[in-house]
Amino acid sequence: MSVRAGIVVTGTEVLGGRVTDRNGPWLADRLHELGVELTHITTVGDRPADILAALRFMADQGLNLIATSGGVGPTADDLTAETVGEFQGRAMVLDEALERRINEILRDFAKRRPNLDLRALREGNRKQAMIPAGSVILEPVGTAPGLIVPPQPGTPGPTVVVLPGPPRELQPMWRAAVADGALSDVLANASDYHQCTLRMFGIPESEIAETLRVAERSGIDLRQLEITTCMHHGEIEVVTRHEPHAQEAYEAFHAMVRERHQDTLFSEDGSTIDEQIASLLRTGPGERPYTVVTAESCTGGLLAARLTNPPGASDYVLGGIVAYSNDAKAALAGVPAELIDRHGAVSAEVAQALARGAITAVGADIGVGITGIAGPTGGSAQKPVGLVWFCVSGPGQASLTRSVHIPGSRADVRDRATTVAMHLLRRVLSGQGESPMPVGGATRLKA
Amino acid sequence: MSVRAGIVVTGTEVLGGRVTDRNGPWLADRLHELGVELTHITTVGDRPADILAALRFMADQGLNLIATSGGVGPTADDLTAETVGEFQGRAMVLDEALERRINEILRDFAKRRPNLDLRALREGNRKQAMIPAGSVILEPVGTAPGLIVPPQPGTPGPTVVVLPGPPRELQPMWRAAVADGALSDVLANASDYHQCTLRMFGIPESEIAETLRVAERSGIDLRQLEITTCMHHGEIEVVTRHEPHAQEAYEAFHAMVRERHQDTLFSEDGSTIDEQIASLLRTGPGERPYTVVTAESCTGGLLAARLTNPPGASDYVLGGIVAYSNDAKAALAGVPAELIDRHGAVSAEVAQALARGAITAVGADIGVGITGIAGPTGGSAQKPVGLVWFCVSGPGQASLTRSVHIPGSRADVRDRATTVAMHLLRRVLSGQGESPMPVGGATRLKA
Repeated sequence: MSVRAGIVVTGTEVLGGRVTDRNGPWLADRLHELGVELTHITTVGDRPADILAALRFMADQGLNLIATSGGVGPTADDLTAETVGEFQGRAMVLDEALERRINEILRDFAKRRPNLDLRALREGNRKQAMIPAGSVILEPVGTAPGLIVPPQPGTPGPTVVVLPGPPRELQPMWRAAVADGALSDVLANASDYHQCTLRMFGIPESEIAETLRVAERSGIDLRQLEITTCMHHGEIEVVTRHEPHAQEAYEAFHAMVRERHQDTLFSEDGSTIDEQIASLLRTGPGERPYTVVTAESCTGGLLAARLTNPPGASDYVLGGIVAYSNDAKAALAGVPAELIDRHGAVSAEVAQALARGAITAVGADIGVGITGIAGPTGGSAQKPVGLVWFCVSGPGQASLTRSVHIPGSRADVRDRATTVAMHLLRRVLSGQGESPMPVGGATRLKA
Repeated sequence: MSVRAGIVVTGTEVLGGRVTDRNGPWLADRLHELGVELTHITTVGDRPADILAALRFMADQGLNLIATSGGVGPTADDLTAETVGEFQGRAMVLDEALERRINEILRDFAKRRPNLDLRALREGNRKQAMIPAGSVILEPVGTAPGLIVPPQPGTPGPTVVVLPGPPRELQPMWRAAVADGALSDVLANASDYHQCTLRMFGIPESEIAETLRVAERSGIDLRQLEITTCMHHGEIEVVTRHEPHAQEAYEAFHAMVRERHQDTLFSEDGSTIDEQIASLLRTGPGERPYTVVTAESCTGGLLAARLTNPPGASDYVLGGIVAYSNDAKAALAGVPAELIDRHGAVSAEVAQALARGAITAVGADIGVGITGIAGPTGGSAQKPVGLVWFCVSGPGQASLTRSVHIPGSRADVRDRATTVAMHLLRRVLSGQGESPMPVGGATRLKA
């Protein structure tokens, strides 16, 4: 018996595309970890009828668990708790202990902000203490409580976990829900799934499709494996889920991917390129981390922002230069104006001068230079929009200079160029600087 | 009679949270523009049964139009066209002209990539030429065609528009679909809705909830207006949709928001802070744009990346410095080590030295300095995680130095600090440098 789940994301602002939902993907990951099969995520506005229809649809699919996010705030359009109560046939009741708890939280907030209209806050938040009878309350992280709302005793139907919209409230609250007895019964039947992720960079998706066909022809029973492939940011991700009895089939498939895609397979343990770069820099030559500096033109700081994203990045990122104008290239990275005149700002020579200039300016082990034409204008026949030159200089004598042509919009070019730089940096750090770089072809083929 | 629509996003990689869907939000915006009421977005994996259930659910809700994204690629798990055919009761047929067209596209791709396995590509792509009988074909942008699949003649039920997953393919194809006669009949009944967006920065959502209550008490008929409020990245967005007859109610509501939130209302025409900054910099002192440079510590390049995001940003962004380590602060922005020793790297003095140092280094009109503690470690009782100092220096004698305390994760602090910097820059550029800055309180209250 497996456990099947759905997610209902509420919020007219999410439905309308003005806010990007981060909760659906996060909850999807958590459900996978628990061995729960997620079948649908539905986004609806703050309309009780639409929320109710989504809940009933999921119940009709025979799901055992539904998580909702959003619609538990203080404003009149926050109606999730009430709607879930109606769905489960449970009347709304005021929980006085919860009301006191919310008022305490508000008092603490107000202390730090003397101008706040406390009465307005309280009036809005009283409704957050109204809950469906028989619910389990999940302690507020902000001011909104979460809820576990079971079906009527003795009836089938899903248990609903009601969670707030802000991810930093939702996430700890989901963990509390999973730890609660009211959910552990539901989760007890979850399967023991293994999930494995392989990542490749620099080949089109059709080559993986071909590998799947070859695997099938060679007798690997792919029906035992739930394989999904997708390409994003120029990387191909092959995710396989399987039950323990299919371990042999998975290992045969994994070995075949490794054999056929050796030169582009960069991750076999689920690690991302960002995690690998952080680890390679941190390990360094042994006794201390490698230090890195960036000098970016077309990516405008995206590489520096990405490298400084992980906690502790200050151990290895010293800083960076955004050398957008030619004057800035000269002033910050010491790129001679004469070099730009001779070769153009988008050239191998300027990419090298940027990387080396950044090292000279700050004194790091490794410099990464990027210069390209993000568009939409500024291209020419010789140097079209999407042409980007990269140079990774250091550590020591290592040096790698490459160009790629990236199709798509200005945002695509900037984003993909940042990813290409990460992969070039990885090649150098893992001592593969001189191996063939298929990135040009791949980025040409598919965005 | 209004037109109601749903969106079905397909893809196990999207459902599983490994790829962020950008198509749902984009299509939601386009549907709004057309006056179509979007009620549900459902994300499902690449399983025909789940896709079919989602389509049938939307048909049961009485929707007139369904757009699908994804699942039209060359791999065996791409099953959307077939499933939509089944839903509409239409058999799959090979469209030979489409097959030839796809083969031509592949030949062009292959020319630029001699190592490619063309046979593998073709085998995968032949299935993309199989379409439900009676569909309208939307010309491929990549190799995948889109489809308009009508219901059986004389039967009710939604028309389905099948679109590919990559946004740069989906977007032009949606525009082609809207221009096609097969959709114009469906869209003919769309309402004439007005949508207006107001944006505020620096107040908690509860103050807008209070304004709504005051508006109601003062006799404004809010039932005629579909108002949604949401807070993201520290900004409050109030979006109102109304039919033409409710224009008077909307104007009264708008006037009340303007009166009560004058000091924090920064956008009344739907413009984003990013668009406003681009326009203010571009307009400059009249004869030429203002030029800007950044010097960022904790945000690590995010501000530079955001400022260089719009096309044409090179007209006013000269460059930037990511002064992550203290050495980089000295080397790139000329911040004296002694100043850091005396006041600490996170201080008003260092924020000012960063802004001014960047101006000196590159020679711009305006410098923006940011220094803070992004966490998760590195905080102290005096300078906790989340404390960020900002300085906007210039143009001319203008100068604004402020600190905020931002709650939440490392990512929250970096992201929000970037937004605060944008708003401080706006204050200076619009001549409001010395007005009170409520950002501290707001960011303290709600992340």
